[in-house]
Amino acid sequence: MSISIPRGTQDILPGDVELWQQIEQKARELCEKYQYQEIRTPIFEHTELFSRGVGDTTDIVQKEMYTFEDRGGRSMTLRPEGTASVVRAFVEKKMFGLAKQPVKLYYMGPMFRYERPQSGRFRQFVQFGVEALGSNDPAIDAEVISLAMNLYKEMGLKKLKLIINSLGDKESRLAHREALIQHFQPRIGEFCSDCQNRLKRNPLRILDCKQDRDHELMKTAPSIIDYLNEESKAYFEKVQKYLGLLHISFEVDPNLVRGLDYYNHTAFEIMSDAEGFGAITTLCGGGRYNGLAEEIGGPETPGIGFALSIERFIAALKAEGIETAVNEGIDCYLAVLGEEAKDYSVGLLQQLRLAGFSAERDYLNRKIKAQFKAADRLHARYVAILGDDELKNNVIHVKNMATGEQVEVALDSFVAYFQKLQ
Amino acid sequence: MSISIPRGTQDILPGDVELWQQIEQKARELCEKYQYQEIRTPIFEHTELFSRGVGDTTDIVQKEMYTFEDRGGRSMTLRPEGTASVVRAFVEKKMFGLAKQPVKLYYMGPMFRYERPQSGRFRQFVQFGVEALGSNDPAIDAEVISLAMNLYKEMGLKKLKLIINSLGDKESRLAHREALIQHFQPRIGEFCSDCQNRLKRNPLRILDCKQDRDHELMKTAPSIIDYLNEESKAYFEKVQKYLGLLHISFEVDPNLVRGLDYYNHTAFEIMSDAEGFGAITTLCGGGRYNGLAEEIGGPETPGIGFALSIERFIAALKAEGIETAVNEGIDCYLAVLGEEAKDYSVGLLQQLRLAGFSAERDYLNRKIKAQFKAADRLHARYVAILGDDELKNNVIHVKNMATGEQVEVALDSFVAYFQKLQ
Repeated sequence: MSISIPRGTQDILPGDVELWQQIEQKARELCEKYQYQEIRTPIFEHTELFSRGVGDTTDIVQKEMYTFEDRGGRSMTLRPEGTASVVRAFVEKKMFGLAKQPVKLYYMGPMFRYERPQSGRFRQFVQFGVEALGSNDPAIDAEVISLAMNLYKEMGLKKLKLIINSLGDKESRLAHREALIQHFQPRIGEFCSDCQNRLKRNPLRILDCKQDRDHELMKTAPSIIDYLNEESKAYFEKVQKYLGLLHISFEVDPNLVRGLDYYNHTAFEIMSDAEGFGAITTLCGGGRYNGLAEEIGGPETPGIGFALSIERFIAALKAEGIETAVNEGIDCYLAVLGEEAKDYSVGLLQQLRLAGFSAERDYLNRKIKAQFKAADRLHARYVAILGDDELKNNVIHVKNMATGEQVEVALDSFVAYFQKLQ
Repeated sequence: MSISIPRGTQDILPGDVELWQQIEQKARELCEKYQYQEIRTPIFEHTELFSRGVGDTTDIVQKEMYTFEDRGGRSMTLRPEGTASVVRAFVEKKMFGLAKQPVKLYYMGPMFRYERPQSGRFRQFVQFGVEALGSNDPAIDAEVISLAMNLYKEMGLKKLKLIINSLGDKESRLAHREALIQHFQPRIGEFCSDCQNRLKRNPLRILDCKQDRDHELMKTAPSIIDYLNEESKAYFEKVQKYLGLLHISFEVDPNLVRGLDYYNHTAFEIMSDAEGFGAITTLCGGGRYNGLAEEIGGPETPGIGFALSIERFIAALKAEGIETAVNEGIDCYLAVLGEEAKDYSVGLLQQLRLAGFSAERDYLNRKIKAQFKAADRLHARYVAILGDDELKNNVIHVKNMATGEQVEVALDSFVAYFQKLQ
């Protein structure tokens, strides 16, 4: 009986994986230009990190975590997102004390949420994200947003929509929170039990509820925009000004709340508005989280970042019909005939590869005709033919597969000859 | 209270991560030359995959797996190694039916074993591995070994030792198994309880026992080499001949057994014999596993591969004192003075980056002197100075940090000027 892959996860196979590699490579190059450096944190963390760092009123923590006891009886959780882990490392490794500030980091890797699998939603998915810790300059909010936008654009996406909002500073949030409680309290009995719990703990999250989203009180709920104090307003205006300077168009959406508890000031999402993209159109989400490092036990540190899913990135590329990651073919296929030639080819293949070429030969004892077919399949630019006769005469035949031209070359100087061909 | 990283795992931070990137990049390039393509499988699999695919008499399966129930009540396990998952994907995705054979794959990613953490041994560690499925040609055994050796050599390692062995085909293994049982049975009471269990289930694994390794019967145990039938002997000789053709020196070690159950024919390990490397000197292990695809529910398929730990790779580089991954510095630091210049620099920075340069500016409202210090810290090759005065006159000053030379450039043509500097 065969064993299947776990539900909601996927294998990424040759033919598809090249596009993943291309996106990741592009992201790395962009991070180099923007001076974000990679950080790698473990796949699992102490469960407490996420209940504190993501927020225990969120769906993620309440319903979707892969939590287990390790053999030592400690509660561990497969990371559902990247920010909490990065901030944990920032605090634990005392990166707030580094000379180079702000600390600009990126990460790339699998995340885990136990959700109902559906098109475009996986239980294991890959996120690329950046975090800038230590600066309260609105220019870095704009930089973070522009990095995500430019990554999408450099891969060819055109149908992008950026929405932004401000959740304000602590004072503004408190004022808004009070207004929300006053708004919902009288009729909270008409809402789901989750929302009833949210009312006192984090009423902002009521606005995110999928179950109650059509309730009439949702449409008339007080907007954070009306509760921003002067400082928060000025900050938000600066961010918008900088986005304008970067020629990035955006819409302000006062209903943009974001799923995590510790966001403040800037919040943003990038969506695809390509036709036929499907129901889940958010490609990337991010925002400012000035309270998070403190929550995790570190000093008060401003921070902002985003995370984007590579799976949805690829879905968006497909929705826009963008061609990517072409198979370029190999440099040389060694077609071999006879036992001695076959043995000799082992060393020759190695020489080609160590000289920097992609090269292949037959490993199935195939006839010469089948070997040429295999070379075609690999889009070989050249086929080098070596039989026992050639070996005896110390020559090899090299065929240019584009022109059909074939030349005889001295076997000893074959690799040097091949180098000159390029 | 702060939250710490789980025991036995590590964060890889900027300053260290560059070496990881360099090794991985080198591995990807080498795989391209050797025509191995990447495959990505999930972080966790159904537990049964590993009890079948690694072998339930192994320490890995019996003592070291991170096994948990998911929210649907299914037993899942964080992958302790890569081969079982790759072969599962090969079977499930019917890759045995692809036109291109053998199927040559590589993987790179975290693996998990609950072991006592110690120097050079982690509970989460990263493996790079390759698998070649579908060929029984001893030349591919040599290719797989040479890929690992060449990766180490290209990174500069010199103190490498390759040991190989043959575990033979089924017939040879059965004959050897009988001899082992006869050898140990009379005195099996003197061995640990694990070994007593192993006697009937997999007596070969007794030779791997750490607890009983000094027992006198260990030294006189029958060697597999003496039980190889003609076919197995011929196969092993071919592998050795090919290694010779590839100028790879090796030692035959009849005691090399490998920890997994499904190995046959070629087994190999690459060790570091650098001084002061520590107790665990094995860098890479691999071998042939012709029975594995069948065990997992697929058709009979020959296979061979290796896995190597990046952590130990790095430890070996350090033990040999090899310098790697130099910080090259950024192309341009924008030093900015005054509110308007600061705003303007947001767009300018973006232009530099999109033109392909790594570029940075201040995000902490620092004075100009501190900005120059930050530029030094980033090893900036140029500093471009923009104040409100410059902005008014539509110029910018560009300082070459190596020569100290400073020129005034029209602001509008600054990026074009910077491109010409390269």
